[in-house]
Amino acid sequence: VREQVFHGWGEPGAGPVFPEHAGALLRTELGVSGEVVSRPVALADVRLAASALPARARERLAAVAAVGDDRLARVLRCRGKGYLDLLAQRAGDCESAPDAVVAPADEAGVAAVLRVCAEEEVAVVPFGGGTSVVGGLAGERGRFSALISLDLGRLDGLRSADPRSLTAVLGAGTRLPEADRALRAHGLAPGHVPQSYEWASVGGCAATRSAGQASTGFGRIDEQVLALRLVTPAGSLETLGAPASAAGPALRQLALGSEGALGVLTQVALRVRRRPESVHYEGWAFGSFADGAEALRALEQAGVAPDIARLSDEEETRIGLALAGGGRLGEWLLGGRCLLVLGWEGSGHSRRAVAARLLRAGARPLGPKPGRAWAASRFAGPHLRDDLIDRGVMVETFETATSWSNLIPLHEAVRAALPGVHVGGHVSHLYATGASLYYTVLAGQDRGDPAGQWRALKATVTEAILAAGGTLTHHHAIGRDHAPWLEREIGATGIALLRALKRECDPAGIMNPGKLLPSAG
Amino acid sequence: VREQVFHGWGEPGAGPVFPEHAGALLRTELGVSGEVVSRPVALADVRLAASALPARARERLAAVAAVGDDRLARVLRCRGKGYLDLLAQRAGDCESAPDAVVAPADEAGVAAVLRVCAEEEVAVVPFGGGTSVVGGLAGERGRFSALISLDLGRLDGLRSADPRSLTAVLGAGTRLPEADRALRAHGLAPGHVPQSYEWASVGGCAATRSAGQASTGFGRIDEQVLALRLVTPAGSLETLGAPASAAGPALRQLALGSEGALGVLTQVALRVRRRPESVHYEGWAFGSFADGAEALRALEQAGVAPDIARLSDEEETRIGLALAGGGRLGEWLLGGRCLLVLGWEGSGHSRRAVAARLLRAGARPLGPKPGRAWAASRFAGPHLRDDLIDRGVMVETFETATSWSNLIPLHEAVRAALPGVHVGGHVSHLYATGASLYYTVLAGQDRGDPAGQWRALKATVTEAILAAGGTLTHHHAIGRDHAPWLEREIGATGIALLRALKRECDPAGIMNPGKLLPSAG
Repeated sequence: VREQVFHGWGEPGAGPVFPEHAGALLRTELGVSGEVVSRPVALADVRLAASALPARARERLAAVAAVGDDRLARVLRCRGKGYLDLLAQRAGDCESAPDAVVAPADEAGVAAVLRVCAEEEVAVVPFGGGTSVVGGLAGERGRFSALISLDLGRLDGLRSADPRSLTAVLGAGTRLPEADRALRAHGLAPGHVPQSYEWASVGGCAATRSAGQASTGFGRIDEQVLALRLVTPAGSLETLGAPASAAGPALRQLALGSEGALGVLTQVALRVRRRPESVHYEGWAFGSFADGAEALRALEQAGVAPDIARLSDEEETRIGLALAGGGRLGEWLLGGRCLLVLGWEGSGHSRRAVAARLLRAGARPLGPKPGRAWAASRFAGPHLRDDLIDRGVMVETFETATSWSNLIPLHEAVRAALPGVHVGGHVSHLYATGASLYYTVLAGQDRGDPAGQWRALKATVTEAILAAGGTLTHHHAIGRDHAPWLEREIGATGIALLRALKRECDPAGIMNPGKLLPSAG
Repeated sequence: VREQVFHGWGEPGAGPVFPEHAGALLRTELGVSGEVVSRPVALADVRLAASALPARARERLAAVAAVGDDRLARVLRCRGKGYLDLLAQRAGDCESAPDAVVAPADEAGVAAVLRVCAEEEVAVVPFGGGTSVVGGLAGERGRFSALISLDLGRLDGLRSADPRSLTAVLGAGTRLPEADRALRAHGLAPGHVPQSYEWASVGGCAATRSAGQASTGFGRIDEQVLALRLVTPAGSLETLGAPASAAGPALRQLALGSEGALGVLTQVALRVRRRPESVHYEGWAFGSFADGAEALRALEQAGVAPDIARLSDEEETRIGLALAGGGRLGEWLLGGRCLLVLGWEGSGHSRRAVAARLLRAGARPLGPKPGRAWAASRFAGPHLRDDLIDRGVMVETFETATSWSNLIPLHEAVRAALPGVHVGGHVSHLYATGASLYYTVLAGQDRGDPAGQWRALKATVTEAILAAGGTLTHHHAIGRDHAPWLEREIGATGIALLRALKRECDPAGIMNPGKLLPSAG
């Protein structure tokens, strides 16, 4: 069983080496020396309370699932992988760790665990891939004195594949690389490739409405999930995998985005794609972010957009160039401009039409090299983040989406809200009516209160996004961190509807307390 | 204000003349003479109970909306336009008619009407375009002694258009032709063109998860609605029009398909399309339905399917040919084969690729004529139906959807379930993972119990569809007629979730009783 390090991203030693050029960038841009100034504590030094799980509950759980409560198991399941999570884990602050990690073998085991926890008053945090960046795995106990992590790792594997209909049924705990491997035997591939690909689980992506890097071509997970099974403390929901239906409201859409607060996804039927015979990535340079966004709008609305389209703004392009070593050629090609990376992971039949349109729109072709460089490092971000935190850098991301008409105004509102820090952004998910905006923030860390430093920025920028008409989150979900703002997006009636669903599915309130819905009320 | 006749489809005299050739078809195939054997009763002869609306309720409603309770108003709002509806209306059976037709001027008026009705214990049937074919408008009173039709006709018109983002906000009561006219001024068009286009309202399409004839190219209404406002007796839900979001479950998807049982849609933001510069329709002939379906699967999965693709089975092709006058040329081209109609209502850039693929798949090109003929008569079906009922013919439709792998087995199960009647079917909505199946049933009417005759066939075929893995309905919704089967598709937990939502939105249970959810429980 693969496990990440408890204080960062990936297995020990995985990921690229910290790039040489980055040191200079840190010095000149962020005013940090580039030397390592902080290291995660050793496992033995992590602060962990004694397990609060009562003996009877532990015994009953052990009768229906595997129960682990050793130090490593609990520390590994303590939280997700956002910047705030990493700060706490690196500092060895695991007092909120689950009292046990409970891993049922199958769907019946999940139902049995929920039954025991409801009866024994134990809170449950479902754990899929463990990659939440919004506090979705935080050990919030609500009114309960004990809390378990419900590990879905054993509900894994390909249950069936239908290459004719391009569908596959997977255990919710299947991680994406394992899903990919299993589908390969049928000539299929998942259409879903988020940056967290190496670790994210199929069920976790569904529960958080994830959008993969190829969402422009293959859709978001909420468009890829055809059917699902959700086990709640009050019973199990199984939806039909018809390609479309008018049989009442789409209940599948209630489970997508429910973030473990209503129940546990145990199985998902996905639309998948035929394994591409070849892939192609390429780069283009635009004179401005607005010009590039306008070109992407035209491609998408004409129905010829590639599977992947990522347009960096001036700042992200500049920082990316510096991290890659820059050089005079890079400067000449990209200096002051915006990098657009395009990728075809299917048939590629729109390549010629796209090139003609981009040339007409004034873009400069950069050839396949920048595209390949992006593809080679598409999962590198979270690895690099560990190195940056080692060096005293605050590094975090946030994202939103809006209509094409509102895209540049929203982008400007975001940048204006965060003076004094480096904020690079990109458009990476195109829709006929609009697009997403994704940002990376870099600054020298406030070593006295690094968490407070980020929380203040996050609050500021979230208010700016909501005021400017963007969604609270395009693909990172609500978790604990966005929960205080959810009512701003869906209103009091929206919250009341979610609470009614929560009461119906989870009358005892054991499911992921404090996530999705704020605890109060 | 446009109104249909109370006993059939469309305005008096609208629609095509009953085709000459059809008489022969009726005699040889259905054993009916082709003579008119039945006529709708005159308005004066319709049986209508005195309005049961208490004086105080009427007075309070009149203070917040226009109230009509004359004979014509009540008879026009008595039910929808399914075969069972028409049988009853033609027979003058309007004892279940609403006690009044209440038409608020705006969203605040809708909220006020719901408040009064909840307080005065009056059931409410929202009325958009009045085109339900599943009993969605039936005057089911539940536990209430009075019932109103809540007419949304005054909540009409284009509120705003954003041609850059391809979005438009429309009052829910706007009928599709009026939406089309208003959008034309902005160079836009609705992407939604169901057969009921002449009368259906935007809100009604959304509330029933309608799929337009061009859904292959432009998506279903549930993919076109970006945001909506739903006024419920307990408060109003307003969703954000972001192109996509991960801010919890998609609450918009709860209102889509809620069929007036949770609240009333007052406003809808739609993804629209640029007005096409040209349209093109064409016909092809396939040797078998299975071969044609296989070719459509290949087009759709390759991403080159046209906006409209309709493949008739052998029986529907034969009946269609006979209705069109057949002839030796038609026989030679189509005899024993299956007609495929394709339509491009956007850019048409896939036409060459499609032709090459269809020729390779063994299809015979029929040129634009059969395509144009389909386009010219795309809204004719419901008009023709009135003529057939006049002539003693039972005529009704039903539909479902399933995966590509299950398409032909489901088709065979449907045909096997209905021996002794004429059942012609077609595929008309393509998805990567499957397609819809739509059927028209024709038989000589059982003049003694025409409603019982259809109900028995409907029950038989619905059981067959569910047993064979099809959805209960792909785009006609649940209404009253499908409600007894809904639990078969969504399970006990699914029903419990809908009931929880209903309790939250509509604690008094006034909203469209007996629709979507069966009355019991």
